[in-house]
Order: sequence, then structure tokens, then C-alpha cells
Amino acid sequence: MNSYTLHGYFRSTTSWRVRIALGFKGLEYETVPVHLLRDGGQQNSDAYKELNPLGEVPTLVVRDDDGAIVARLAQSVAILEYLEETHPNPGLFPPDAVGRARTRQLVEIVNSSIHPVQNLKVMRQLTADFGTDRAANFDWAKRWIDRHFVGLERLVEITRGRYAMGDAITLADVAIVPQVFNARRFGVQMDRFPCLTAVSSAASEHPAFEAAVPSRQPDFEG
Amino acid sequence: MNSYTLHGYFRSTTSWRVRIALGFKGLEYETVPVHLLRDGGQQNSDAYKELNPLGEVPTLVVRDDDGAIVARLAQSVAILEYLEETHPNPGLFPPDAVGRARTRQLVEIVNSSIHPVQNLKVMRQLTADFGTDRAANFDWAKRWIDRHFVGLERLVEITRGRYAMGDAITLADVAIVPQVFNARRFGVQMDRFPCLTAVSSAASEHPAFEAAVPSRQPDFEG
Repeated sequence: MNSYTLHGYFRSTTSWRVRIALGFKGLEYETVPVHLLRDGGQQNSDAYKELNPLGEVPTLVVRDDDGAIVARLAQSVAILEYLEETHPNPGLFPPDAVGRARTRQLVEIVNSSIHPVQNLKVMRQLTADFGTDRAANFDWAKRWIDRHFVGLERLVEITRGRYAMGDAITLADVAIVPQVFNARRFGVQMDRFPCLTAVSSAASEHPAFEAAVPSRQPDFEG
Repeated sequence: MNSYTLHGYFRSTTSWRVRIALGFKGLEYETVPVHLLRDGGQQNSDAYKELNPLGEVPTLVVRDDDGAIVARLAQSVAILEYLEETHPNPGLFPPDAVGRARTRQLVEIVNSSIHPVQNLKVMRQLTADFGTDRAANFDWAKRWIDRHFVGLERLVEITRGRYAMGDAITLADVAIVPQVFNARRFGVQMDRFPCLTAVSSAASEHPAFEAAVPSRQPDFEG
């Protein structure tokens, strides 16, 4: 049986996605915290860049029975798809190709259209280039999320049941729940997005989602 | 047999990825150009937002024999995975789970770590918020690509053969080729990245890659 080590950060929404999926599939894992702010960002250390040359979290290290490394995987979506392929039950996709495509569409709206533009790296670049302070960075993130949530809300309004894609939890919920948390953190008025709010609340009640929240991680800071 | 309509823009690298995959799998499609600059951005029109509420390209419309819409799909990665699932031959993934994960890792480095931060939307936001001109926006894009290509180059150095993942073309090449084009456009010194340059050149010789370049699209502007 393979074993898993997740290098991540409690507040990183991409690490959070992987925590949810591991828990949902009943896979135990060891957590190795990578503090994105301390020591000039521990993700930039030579040791971490050996593991992940991009210097990003999360990285999942998969080992076999003998402790030999099977894979060192970065990029949350690549990790989620890998876990889905290697541990298909319980699954995080609908049974039909169009349903899976719609699920991935929702995942990618969060993963590629929203999150990358409001993450820590970009905010630091704004500060370096334009002298933005914390408030200006939060405002940048808030406006970006808000604008894209308008379209995401419309899509989820069509596909939702109790969760984002009908009445079963999918990878769409895995992506949306942490992004809704970030939205609140940056001051987005979530009452404008009733569907996103509802499906996010519903999924958050699942034990795997409950266990994955930042406040329950070993490296949490209040 | 399904038919395909691709709503995209000649210079959009995400539209370009879908053009490559359609061609690689021998699927004919109709092109509907969406001009991202004209008319305040045609992707922001009400008509287009009916199709894709996020107002982004590409959108692939899939119709059945009777012309009924099977799916309207946005997000290039969701579209690529859908095409792979519904038309697995010729395939764009390695045969093993770890190989597929490494392929998706390379795809997502381009799709979620690099491209979203150097795209037109972000540049426009920089201009709106900080008054950047075209040269400053190009410099932002150049630095972002350059920094992330350092890590991507190291990964591809390990996985490459003739192409990014060994000696068969995969989705990694589909993502890398348009991003290397953008890198050159924004002034990245590609001689620093010999592996990315080599695999990109090799894949570009494939007829599906040749047919998908911006200069061969009906909406091309020199």
C-alpha cells in the first residue's frame, strides 16, 4: 500500500483541496508544513525546490511499501486527478463524460481563472512593482474573485443540487469550498452568490471537508 | 457523429491548445472568432455570455447528429480532458497513472501558474489600477513567464525525450508550445531554456500543431 506525505501550508487553498480529497478517499497522510511567509518563504528554499522546482505548494510525495518514492507531484489538479485514478472509490466525478467535463470546468474556473490572480505570489509582485499595501492587495483579490464569481454563480445555478454538480460531492466542491473561504477573507459579499454559498455550506458538513479546514491543521496560526 | 464549434481568438493560447487537440484527433470543427479587443471585447457581449457566463475564450459547443447541443464547455483543460475521454485515439496521455500525473503537472504549471497571470485580463487590470502602459505590461508578463520557466525547464529536463514527456506527444506539449510562443512575444530569452525550446520545436512540426498556429487562423491579424 502506498503512503502519502503532503507538503503544504494551512492557508493555501490548493493544499486544502488535496487535504479534502485524501480525506474523502480515506487515505492517511503525513503533513509537512511549508511556511509561505517565514524565512523568506520556505517554498523558496533549496531543499524544497529539490522536491518542487517551481517552489509552490502543495507537493504530494507518494511512497511504496518499501518507502521508495513512486512520485513527487505538484499542482493540485494533477494530484486530484491522480488520486481519482488510483483510488476511484469513493469517486469525485459524475459518471458521464459531459458531467465530468462540467465538473472540470467549475474546477478550472477556480483553479486557473480565479485563484492564480489572487494568490500570495501575485500580491507580493504588486507590492514590489507598484508599492501596494496589504489593504490594496486584499482589494485586488476581492474584486477579482467577485467579478468571476458572477459567472461561476450562473453556472452552478444550472448544475447544482445539494452540491455544485447535483446531489453528490465532486471535485467542483473540492475547488469551490476553499475559494469561498478566501472570498470571505478578502471581503467579498457572499449574499450576492446564494448558490455558491449554499453548495459550499452543504459540502463543508462532510467529515473530509471538516477535517481539511485551515484551523484544524498542525501549522495553523490564528 | 458529433460536430464541434470552437469560439476562440487566434492569439489566445488557451484557444490554441484546443485547436491542436481537435486537429491531433482528426476532428473537424467550425471556427467562430471572438475578438478580445474589438467592441470593448466581444467576449463581454450578452450573446457570448449566454454561451460562457465567465466571458472567456475558448468555448467549445458540441452538437449531435440532429444539431442539438450536447455540451457548451469552457476552460481549455476541461475541454482537452473531454476530447481525450470521448476520442481516446490517438491519445494525448502516457499509459501509466504516474506518467499521466506528470503530464497534468506540466499542463497545470502552464495553465494555472503561468498563463493566468500574464493574460490580457490581468494586463488590463494593471493598466486600470496602476496606469501601466503596453511596455510595462509586456515586462510584467515577461518576468512572470521567465521566473516560472526556470522550474518548468528543470522538470522537462527530467521527463523529456523528443517531446516533453518522452517520445510521444502529450497534453504537456499542447500546453507548452503556445506558452513558448507567448514567451518569445513578450521578450523572454529562450536560449536560457534549451529543453523547453527543443521539445516545443519538435512538437511544432506535427501537422496538428502546424495548423493551429495563430497566423493560420481565419481571424488572424498580422
